[in-house]
Amino acid sequence: MMKTLIAVIGSANAEKPAYDLAFETGREIIKAGFTLLCGGLSGVMEAASKGAYSEAGKDSGRIIGILPGTNKNDANPYIDIAVPTGIGYARNMIVACASDAVIAIAGGSGTLSELAMAWQYGKPIVVIEKIDGVSGLFAGRSLDDRRNDCIQGASNAKEAVNIIKRLLGKKSSKE
Amino acid sequence: MMKTLIAVIGSANAEKPAYDLAFETGREIIKAGFTLLCGGLSGVMEAASKGAYSEAGKDSGRIIGILPGTNKNDANPYIDIAVPTGIGYARNMIVACASDAVIAIAGGSGTLSELAMAWQYGKPIVVIEKIDGVSGLFAGRSLDDRRNDCIQGASNAKEAVNIIKRLLGKKSSKE
Amino acid sequence: MMKTLIAVIGSANAEKPAYDLAFETGREIIKAGFTLLCGGLSGVMEAASKGAYSEAGKDSGRIIGILPGTNKNDANPYIDIAVPTGIGYARNMIVACASDAVIAIAGGSGTLSELAMAWQYGKPIVVIEKIDGVSGLFAGRSLDDRRNDCIQGASNAKEAVNIIKRLLGKKSSKE
Amino acid sequence: MMKTLIAVIGSANAEKPAYDLAFETGREIIKAGFTLLCGGLSGVMEAASKGAYSEAGKDSGRIIGILPGTNKNDANPYIDIAVPTGIGYARNMIVACASDAVIAIAGGSGTLSELAMAWQYGKPIVVIEKIDGVSGLFAGRSLDDRRNDCIQGASNAKEAVNIIKRLLGKKSSKE
Repeated sequence: MMKTLIAVIGSANAEKPAYDLAFETGREIIKAGFTLLCGGLSGVMEAASKGAYSEAGKDSGRIIGILPGTNKNDANPYIDIAVPTGIGYARNMIVACASDAVIAIAGGSGTLSELAMAWQYGKPIVVIEKIDGVSGLFAGRSLDDRRNDCIQGASNAKEAVNIIKRLLGKKSSKE
Repeated sequence: MMKTLIAVIGSANAEKPAYDLAFETGREIIKAGFTLLCGGLSGVMEAASKGAYSEAGKDSGRIIGILPGTNKNDANPYIDIAVPTGIGYARNMIVACASDAVIAIAGGSGTLSELAMAWQYGKPIVVIEKIDGVSGLFAGRSLDDRRNDCIQGASNAKEAVNIIKRLLGKKSSKE
Repeated sequence: MMKTLIAVIGSANAEKPAYDLAFETGREIIKAGFTLLCGGLSGVMEAASKGAYSEAGKDSGRIIGILPGTNKNDANPYIDIAVPTGIGYARNMIVACASDAVIAIAGGSGTLSELAMAWQYGKPIVVIEKIDGVSGLFAGRSLDDRRNDCIQGASNAKEAVNIIKRLLGKKSSKE
Repeated sequence: MMKTLIAVIGSANAEKPAYDLAFETGREIIKAGFTLLCGGLSGVMEAASKGAYSEAGKDSGRIIGILPGTNKNDANPYIDIAVPTGIGYARNMIVACASDAVIAIAGGSGTLSELAMAWQYGKPIVVIEKIDGVSGLFAGRSLDDRRNDCIQGASNAKEAVNIIKRLLGKKSSKE
């Protein structure tokens, strides 16, 4: 009954092809029956929200934005559930902690910090390969020896979501 | 399109009549078309979630729990969207910040801190009167001069939600 | 060897007599061999820092300000060690958590939230009585049954610090 | 008058040569007149604290530990000023935000998240090169285009602190 939250992380300034990839990723997340979690602002966050919205429609309760500021109106227009936190960049920590798995698209230092925190919290992580930005560099890599697995690489949105489905499925079958 | 989040705050250890009041409050929040936000754990939080669930049913995406720990399984069984934050008691701050309005039922020091933060963040606040616990003492009171209004008292769940509707309505008509 | 940190909490807008009381409290904290912890800004925080500075002098490393913003230059001029947190009002939580004991002087909703958090964290609390503001109302009161003690009232700075000394002494002799 | 805080970040499990490097770095930070800021626990954090202590002695007020838990006794024995935050891994954010500059030694995902946050917050960053761990990989690199500078590499503790001195000096002369 509890929703499975898939975080999409990436830069607040995204152009093609990152924007399009994020849109597709948001859409695939909804198609797969998941709920989208993101930082709620512009760029990759907005694109993923818009893609999710294109599939989920109005009032789905499946597009969640964890905002850095105190004002819910900072959210991009596709966010259903805005969670203004008032804790600034530290909200990245909460995106990582609250997700069941993370998909990273391009991005810079903010994305890198979220990706590293998601690793600390033991979350499955998929990065989109072969686009600019810092996250793609981590495909196939481990960040330290606290985990046996590695960050997965995917070449497109559908593949990324399929990997997440497989990783979460494995996890639940073990439990 | 963005959901209006009404927080219910109160103790993690609730007996009758606080438990029943919280159940009714959760139900009235959903009936009124709002989304329930709470701390996601036991006591008043669970009762409100259960009441909301009794009205919203499964998979509504309208029962949100902001958890102190890192594990979403800490959530009570009626939570739809669990947001584990990993920041301990500081998650109270986020409940206050993310809400559009707050209803307080009984409670102790944790509830008092949330109520005070909700005041700082400028949120409309209603407390249920004439039950044990710290929050009821603040009906009709102001906490400081940063606001012109005061904390509202209500004698039952329905009245509490009606006051919230009126306060949020007024607010939006002013905007 | 580890410093004992005494937090002074109160409004960012303080006039006489709260300002003078906070100054004396900061001074007495240093005289007693403690380190001052505060929110680092104006009003009661500044007065306590100034009082501490009048006793500790330059470069003592004994006047700590936990700031809400990201810029250390927000600190009042008497702060030795500025800790900008970037987490907004949530820094109140850290003041409460990091203190060994708390002295509250006047104040409004922010002070009330810190006082309630300090109670949650099990910290000894003294409030100055008979001045305006919310904290004085809690002298002799308990916030909930998680603790057997109550919030202590003091009529001046010296008495407040003496109570803290006694409470911390008792505590350590029990351990 | 306000202390300049230099953060040392790195793994909680450190063996030689990382432990020795961190010890030297802590010592050099104190020798240079700075105050040490760290996460307050074991490994690189403890080694840096111990090195600082070897130079600053008892009760210096110049060895600060920002702890993830709520108990100040979690701090390593060389910490002067323990700041338990109760916010878990999110305390990494505060280490990054509160520092004037950061030196990273070895480390894994936690260190990587702090390094990325320090970049976001615009802090000068030096990494020790040619030891195991994730931070050394970033010598000479930029994390994104929000800054014109890059992460500096150093081959030993003295060089790292000298680079920090130069970077902070430059910065202040510009202001």
